[in-house]
Amino acid sequence: MSAVTPPRIEVSGEADQPHSQVVRLEASNALAMDCGAAFGPLTIAYQTYGALNRNRSNAILVCHALTGDQHVANVHPVTGKAGWWSTMVGPGRPIDTDRYFVICSNVLGGCMGTTGPASTNPATGRPYGLDMPVVTIRDMVRAQAMLIDHLGIEQLFCVVGGSMGGMQVLQWAASYPDRVYAAIPIATAPRHSSQNIAFHEVGRQAIMADPNWLGGRYYDHGSKPEKGLAVARMAAHITYMSDDSLHRKFGRKLQGRSAPTFSFDADFQIESYLRYQGSTFVERFDANSYLYVTRAMDYFDLAEDYGGVLAKAFQKSRSRFCLVSFSSDWLFPTAESRSIVHALNASGASVSFVEIDTDKGHDAFLLDVPELLATTSGFLEAAARARGIDGDRQ
Amino acid sequence: MSAVTPPRIEVSGEADQPHSQVVRLEASNALAMDCGAAFGPLTIAYQTYGALNRNRSNAILVCHALTGDQHVANVHPVTGKAGWWSTMVGPGRPIDTDRYFVICSNVLGGCMGTTGPASTNPATGRPYGLDMPVVTIRDMVRAQAMLIDHLGIEQLFCVVGGSMGGMQVLQWAASYPDRVYAAIPIATAPRHSSQNIAFHEVGRQAIMADPNWLGGRYYDHGSKPEKGLAVARMAAHITYMSDDSLHRKFGRKLQGRSAPTFSFDADFQIESYLRYQGSTFVERFDANSYLYVTRAMDYFDLAEDYGGVLAKAFQKSRSRFCLVSFSSDWLFPTAESRSIVHALNASGASVSFVEIDTDKGHDAFLLDVPELLATTSGFLEAAARARGIDGDRQ
Repeated sequence: MSAVTPPRIEVSGEADQPHSQVVRLEASNALAMDCGAAFGPLTIAYQTYGALNRNRSNAILVCHALTGDQHVANVHPVTGKAGWWSTMVGPGRPIDTDRYFVICSNVLGGCMGTTGPASTNPATGRPYGLDMPVVTIRDMVRAQAMLIDHLGIEQLFCVVGGSMGGMQVLQWAASYPDRVYAAIPIATAPRHSSQNIAFHEVGRQAIMADPNWLGGRYYDHGSKPEKGLAVARMAAHITYMSDDSLHRKFGRKLQGRSAPTFSFDADFQIESYLRYQGSTFVERFDANSYLYVTRAMDYFDLAEDYGGVLAKAFQKSRSRFCLVSFSSDWLFPTAESRSIVHALNASGASVSFVEIDTDKGHDAFLLDVPELLATTSGFLEAAARARGIDGDRQ
Repeated sequence: MSAVTPPRIEVSGEADQPHSQVVRLEASNALAMDCGAAFGPLTIAYQTYGALNRNRSNAILVCHALTGDQHVANVHPVTGKAGWWSTMVGPGRPIDTDRYFVICSNVLGGCMGTTGPASTNPATGRPYGLDMPVVTIRDMVRAQAMLIDHLGIEQLFCVVGGSMGGMQVLQWAASYPDRVYAAIPIATAPRHSSQNIAFHEVGRQAIMADPNWLGGRYYDHGSKPEKGLAVARMAAHITYMSDDSLHRKFGRKLQGRSAPTFSFDADFQIESYLRYQGSTFVERFDANSYLYVTRAMDYFDLAEDYGGVLAKAFQKSRSRFCLVSFSSDWLFPTAESRSIVHALNASGASVSFVEIDTDKGHDAFLLDVPELLATTSGFLEAAARARGIDGDRQ
């Protein structure tokens, strides 16, 4: 046993002092939110990789998913693990940081430095908790647009993301039709389904049922609703995998024993795995942020802002789109991507669409799936040629 | 406002004083359980409908699912609602109580009168809690066989049930091949899948995370882990419905409002529905029973007892089988029923199998699905003729 343990970085520290660059926008520069609030001051925490070219034409914005963050291709400051999309982003990767200037910011409502419920409310000197206004996907995208303005980028070469990140990609194309040259929405949907709202509601109820949640004021009491948040993560984690992949990976295999214990211990590997997922998640994520970010997804219904006609959302868009879905993804099934493709076709957009055959479920967008990497790489290559981005960082 | 409220019957009262007939078996008649325990004394609570004929050849045993009970076709003493399978069981129904003698008992580990964790442990005078040995599907079936012995019935005309009830049907055919003339396993599987174990584990963790659970000793403290149990029920309830049926029934419809509240209230109908399902469930079900009964399903793997070859489980069976699955059931998908059919074919059994096309998901087995009623009715009719059961209660 070593007596030396590395200092543990708490996610609550990241909320106000992130290991990232930040943009601080004063209250005078408030964000007009969907709920009606003018929200500020506002901090946006972000990472960049690679260099912006002279024409400022090679910027790619990566939008993260529910529990992701800006640490897309660098070691995570809290977990010490590799960036969440290091298969996709990096030197020589499909989103090639030798070629493109890659930006990823923590979403509004998150807990890794962009203002969220764990951030200090300057009006009170205490964390916002539920006093933070409820955030939508469009609000997240508005905050990202402020960052892109700050970086002096007129048009993004590409906006890319999976799951909730894909919702942001769609919202970018709808809200800022001139600012998105190419768009890659992966494993996503134009609106959150009833089943998906249901799973989110279970997670939120698990958090709010935890007596340590304290109406969202747990920060003031030095406690955290860790058990509730772990249950929420466990339930959600099941939805990220397919029945087949769970069967292949775990089946009914027992964990470190040859016979069942006839108890409520984690006899099965799948139980042990889920408990581990729950317990590690609470170290890196804030429970109130989980409420806010799930709620943003629930509220997402892109067609609703356009009279219920999805095609109208893309009417002004001049982006070229590449959609990707995964055959075993039951959280964001292929039918959802197909409905986006139909709307894009109806609006006359340039669209390519690939359904990748895999048993890895929704999680496939985060994994080393060769067809995903090849599709993204091929699409970006063609788009870069069309946009006139070559290798010399012109 | 009326000042009169009906007396509320608590499920905890049902555990020791059920509104059902009971068989009490003394410790001398202990149940040899899979975990190695010799468990007794034992109470089995049951309901019967119709009359046993002279030959004792017209008895149908209905096996209930996870949170079902013996009140299959009578008003439930706790909820005041109709029996859980009153579409299927009753005079003139497919399981016709004018013709058959129908028996349904609460499972071992349940909370409606058969011995379970809420029952008083005679050794301590207090509820068992987790001192009750862990129960398997085979243990449940052993207890049912004791009841059938007590009723003086040598061979059941039919054993029928859906979901966990279907597991019991399969176990009956395997354990008591001479005592089952016909078997109807509905929407079930020969072993609990990894994904299904995962959902159960989430529910158990939600219960055990509730500080009112108190290691299962909540009975002694006048508290109940209601919030944890409600979350468990909410998560499970999603799995009982299909994505399509949720979409059809709720979609993204708001609950009693025309615009979202930008809060964590139950804005969407699906949220309100799930919260209601959670809150009513805790009134009729014991949290520890939920742990025990989910665990029994997790441990179910019929082939395992027969060297991993499912067909061997049915080698001695002379029952005729009718299997039913539902096209939109993702908890017990058709592939599971098909694997049972293959094993039965390999063992030379008489099998018919119907996959019913419906969007109602796993819940379909409990609902008024005409094809289910017609299939059951037709199969029983033919079996009754073959068995020589006619209308005069011979």
